[in-house]
Amino acid sequence: MITSMDRLSLNQITTKRLSVAEFVPACVSAGITSVGLWRDPVAENGLQATADLVRAAGLRVSSLCRGGFLTASDSSARAVALDDNRRAIDEAAVLGAPCLVMVVGGLPTGSRDLVGARQRVSDAIRELAPYAHDRNVRLALEPLHPMFCADRAVLSTLGQAIDMAEQFPVADVGVVVDTYHIWWDPDVWRQIARAGERIASFQVCDWLTPLPADVLLGRGLMGDGHIEFPPFVTAVDAAGYRGDIEVEIFNAEIWDRDPISVVASVVNRFRDVVIGQG
Amino acid sequence: MITSMDRLSLNQITTKRLSVAEFVPACVSAGITSVGLWRDPVAENGLQATADLVRAAGLRVSSLCRGGFLTASDSSARAVALDDNRRAIDEAAVLGAPCLVMVVGGLPTGSRDLVGARQRVSDAIRELAPYAHDRNVRLALEPLHPMFCADRAVLSTLGQAIDMAEQFPVADVGVVVDTYHIWWDPDVWRQIARAGERIASFQVCDWLTPLPADVLLGRGLMGDGHIEFPPFVTAVDAAGYRGDIEVEIFNAEIWDRDPISVVASVVNRFRDVVIGQG
Repeated sequence: MITSMDRLSLNQITTKRLSVAEFVPACVSAGITSVGLWRDPVAENGLQATADLVRAAGLRVSSLCRGGFLTASDSSARAVALDDNRRAIDEAAVLGAPCLVMVVGGLPTGSRDLVGARQRVSDAIRELAPYAHDRNVRLALEPLHPMFCADRAVLSTLGQAIDMAEQFPVADVGVVVDTYHIWWDPDVWRQIARAGERIASFQVCDWLTPLPADVLLGRGLMGDGHIEFPPFVTAVDAAGYRGDIEVEIFNAEIWDRDPISVVASVVNRFRDVVIGQG
Repeated sequence: MITSMDRLSLNQITTKRLSVAEFVPACVSAGITSVGLWRDPVAENGLQATADLVRAAGLRVSSLCRGGFLTASDSSARAVALDDNRRAIDEAAVLGAPCLVMVVGGLPTGSRDLVGARQRVSDAIRELAPYAHDRNVRLALEPLHPMFCADRAVLSTLGQAIDMAEQFPVADVGVVVDTYHIWWDPDVWRQIARAGERIASFQVCDWLTPLPADVLLGRGLMGDGHIEFPPFVTAVDAAGYRGDIEVEIFNAEIWDRDPISVVASVVNRFRDVVIGQG
């Protein structure tokens, strides 16, 4: 296995309470060399200021979260969404993020046309891909766990995300492999192998039970849940992915902890549980 | 479409507060001709007494819920589970239920070996299928929504359930098509067609958002959520299924309503939303 600690990227949502200006030195202090950023805190800190800060700190940016929400059937809502995605692509370019993570959106309010929503995502990616290409940003289609199909992402499996990505050049559109969303999939090993060069981002976090009241905020630190990580690391490596491995955890209880101790826990768990070099 | 109201089966969990002795006449009064039964309330009423009551009322039994929970790695726990499943098969035979619905179980406590758990289910079905065959009961493998993979059912897609069922004679092991569990699956239409004669049970209920605090109890009455039902009815018909269509709703709020009004709502929604003959 060719993994090592320097492939660890910390997604800033994991320490949600930290501003960009606090987050960057916290990563540096912990020996973390790569970060995943979110548009809102980046905007709060200033886009160019963030790009400068991250670069001066010697950090890579593994991804920008996020674009997407492309399922509107109303043409003006669709135009607004496309515009917003173009801005997100611009921001990723300024930050030097190799990919923009795309959470594609759920069913429009009152609609039950899942097939149509999926088609509209594909159509929107077709409009956005050349724009992203010109800015050297890759669109990373993220399949979300099927429990989010109605309200967040009609892309529900890795296989489906690859099917969509394959309509476009490999340099322009890839997929996200996120253990939380796909660990249950009986077809996941075949699909990771199939994804190959399409893997634009590899994210890890754990599946906890019972699910919390708000299922958006119940993702676990690796080792606290039901997912066995090393087979995913091995499979993604075998598929040829050599990029960062991003730790992205939405968890209200973790957000309430001291962020510096959370960063330390992420480093320890990444070493002990994910890449198994403890 | 060859559906009609007389294919409606009411699963008794939908009116959980009713005893068997109350549930049977409530169905008859509403013109419902088929029922899905659960082991616990049947046992409370007496197995043979229930069989007699249902037969005297002229009702079909579309399924018995449920067997399963076959993932234990410990040999004594495994033996207990197999014994319990043999009893469930015996009960299905007495009730004249054509199938026993199998919720196969999640990961054993502390285990992250999903591949192993799935293999143990397959091994257990291999032990149970001849026993079920001899009693003219079909084992109906139910894929549960992937959000239940860790704690309730390591069978997560219809395709995976068919793969497992196909190891056995079609008369002995089938699959459950339940809209709630599989509606999100981009491969679902191909898999329903592929299932063909393997379809042992067809269940309908709706997907609600937001998910409730206890995700077991947030299934919706058809029409209250995000699922478009007629395409499923058409697909299952096209696959050759001619059996009952069971309405099975786990919902704490519906359980608190007057059960007789719930039965009436089920009949109305089945007509208007599921088979579209309103």
